[in-house]
Amino acid sequence: MDIMKKAIEMHGEFKGKLEVRSKIPLEDSYDLSLAYSPGVAAPCIEIENNRSKVFEYTMKGNLVAVVTDGTAVLGLGDIGPEAALPVMEGKALLLKRFSNVDAVPICLDTKDVDEIVRTVKAIAPTFGAINLEDISAPRCFEIEDRLRRECNIPIFHDDQHGTAIVVAAGLKNALKIVGKQKEAVKIVINGAGAAGIAILRILLQIGFNNIVMCDSTGVIYSGREKGMNPIKDNIAHLTNPENLKGDLSEALVGADIFIGVSVANLLTEEHIKSMNTDPIVFALANPNPEITYDNAKAWGVRVIGTGRSDYPNQVNNLLAFPGIFRGALDVRATDINESMKLAAVEAIASLITEDKLHEDYIIPKSLDERVAPAVAKAVGSAAIDTGVSDLFQQPLSVVK
Amino acid sequence: MDIMKKAIEMHGEFKGKLEVRSKIPLEDSYDLSLAYSPGVAAPCIEIENNRSKVFEYTMKGNLVAVVTDGTAVLGLGDIGPEAALPVMEGKALLLKRFSNVDAVPICLDTKDVDEIVRTVKAIAPTFGAINLEDISAPRCFEIEDRLRRECNIPIFHDDQHGTAIVVAAGLKNALKIVGKQKEAVKIVINGAGAAGIAILRILLQIGFNNIVMCDSTGVIYSGREKGMNPIKDNIAHLTNPENLKGDLSEALVGADIFIGVSVANLLTEEHIKSMNTDPIVFALANPNPEITYDNAKAWGVRVIGTGRSDYPNQVNNLLAFPGIFRGALDVRATDINESMKLAAVEAIASLITEDKLHEDYIIPKSLDERVAPAVAKAVGSAAIDTGVSDLFQQPLSVVK
Repeated sequence: MDIMKKAIEMHGEFKGKLEVRSKIPLEDSYDLSLAYSPGVAAPCIEIENNRSKVFEYTMKGNLVAVVTDGTAVLGLGDIGPEAALPVMEGKALLLKRFSNVDAVPICLDTKDVDEIVRTVKAIAPTFGAINLEDISAPRCFEIEDRLRRECNIPIFHDDQHGTAIVVAAGLKNALKIVGKQKEAVKIVINGAGAAGIAILRILLQIGFNNIVMCDSTGVIYSGREKGMNPIKDNIAHLTNPENLKGDLSEALVGADIFIGVSVANLLTEEHIKSMNTDPIVFALANPNPEITYDNAKAWGVRVIGTGRSDYPNQVNNLLAFPGIFRGALDVRATDINESMKLAAVEAIASLITEDKLHEDYIIPKSLDERVAPAVAKAVGSAAIDTGVSDLFQQPLSVVK
Repeated sequence: MDIMKKAIEMHGEFKGKLEVRSKIPLEDSYDLSLAYSPGVAAPCIEIENNRSKVFEYTMKGNLVAVVTDGTAVLGLGDIGPEAALPVMEGKALLLKRFSNVDAVPICLDTKDVDEIVRTVKAIAPTFGAINLEDISAPRCFEIEDRLRRECNIPIFHDDQHGTAIVVAAGLKNALKIVGKQKEAVKIVINGAGAAGIAILRILLQIGFNNIVMCDSTGVIYSGREKGMNPIKDNIAHLTNPENLKGDLSEALVGADIFIGVSVANLLTEEHIKSMNTDPIVFALANPNPEITYDNAKAWGVRVIGTGRSDYPNQVNNLLAFPGIFRGALDVRATDINESMKLAAVEAIASLITEDKLHEDYIIPKSLDERVAPAVAKAVGSAAIDTGVSDLFQQPLSVVK
């Protein structure tokens, strides 16, 4: 594949994609005396006396660590921290390119949950936020939960929430096309990994109430014996109101929406025909979706989204994470909470105005330059509204 | 002080001194497909199959972490990780400016030795080398020793070795001026912290054999009761062949060389007069040296070096660390060993040719652009010669 060969060439030519640069002039000894000894002591002392000044005098407020243990990289699986580095550099440069966030890869030589949590907490003083990336489920859930509780900077696992936010935005617009209400539709999510679970959570929050989740064993339901664990028990509790059993085929009967985060070429014509009228399909398996765009169209899918850039409606978390980090950093958020995520969903969805909306344009293009600023603004506002902005907190504790 | 005000302004205007930049074009979806999905999978797979290719396809081979716990920053002491960040950013930009090394600050939210070692090991896969910075003694010794043993990338504590290397280079040239031999001189080192001990070690290695070390209690000698610890027991064992006792004044009688890494304005005219003829003084207390340049000259010091940029013979580790990291990275060194440090000493000293050498010019100026390349070349060669270069190792294991 030509792109693969070209990619090797390019990575080899530049020896990595990122560099660190000085933002200030550094020509003579006067410049040095400001940037380093003795002048540098002045901001050090200011920060020692008032720690929040670290946001004024250092790069912390614009710096994100892209942290991985290399266990779930792209579709490649557990390839280790060194082999994960090209992806983390790529993520960092997307943050720079789309929202001017400075980001550095941190690839960890450990897969132990306690050790990962400890390490991220230890390095946190340098960073304004942490992007967790390509950490396998279910460890990613515990790592994110613990870090969110224990750190005073935002922690965001993009594989979960980035994907979920873009799916939710696309779904919102897709429903307008088919004229259905979120309370009235049945959704089948196939794949109960990090992305699937995050999609489930955000859809429940938005108000979808009939969701059936499948894993490789089939429909997840209360009382299922095979392949359950505490997370799937919780899924069973939150989903499947009709207590369906069986496999994906049975789940799909009468469904309005299919969301796949599973494997290539899974959906047959029979599957599609068994769904409700005007089916909506998000086939997100990468690089080959659960159903191709052409098959979906041929078999009667009304709206089809995939992860591919060469077809319409690309579900790409590039639409979410640059703006989310920009917004969080801009208001010195201490968390990226559910309100901020829902604000991102709204911001992405509302960029497709009614007059432009159609079956092949339910979400903005990945390179649409309007997206990151719109998401950043919405996310920043939501942070302020929910009191997690260190810059714009209402001084409620003072007003007795 | 005007520089302090200017430094605050500059740090506030730029919000830190470093940024992360893309080295590659990133305009359209083709660029993205090479830098990120799907193309990025190609270098990932190459590295997964052969881990050393991480040096070919990523930034690792040119990336240094500047790691601190904020416990011994400048002369400010234990100011914490956030307040240390301006210094670490400064260090990183010096590495970029003088030897094109990419470096990022990592300020740690822990002072625990085990935790620091664990954290640096955990983040090591991303980096080509680690610069330990401003970690207080004696913890810095154990941290560096353990990391050198346990990591496969170079670990270098600049406060120790950078200073020691430049002092050794200066001393070598100063001896030429006074026409004395290293085997014949008596040296007094005042200050038994990280820098003092590193200076002692390198001078012993070079072949100086009559060194007396003092701390705040006075001369360190075998059998001293007050203020001893295992490190000082070792110092006593390695130094003070005449088994001197008493205070600094007594140590200085007949000494040829004084090296201070202690406190300002310590040396009196009597001290200097009690030394041997043509005394050499390195007064490195910062920002105010143990003796001023003017007093030293007035009282008969033949060669005086200080840490100050506004007087001749500035002992600045900027002469050492950029070239040392450049050299180590260039040959993919797995360590920065004693041979490499001694090679740096030689490289720095030999930049002052006999015809240029005089009392006020024993070491290159801090901004001398010849220094880093010369040091890098010498350090890289020494790494190859001592078998710690991963690029140029003799394949001895193959030749049976």
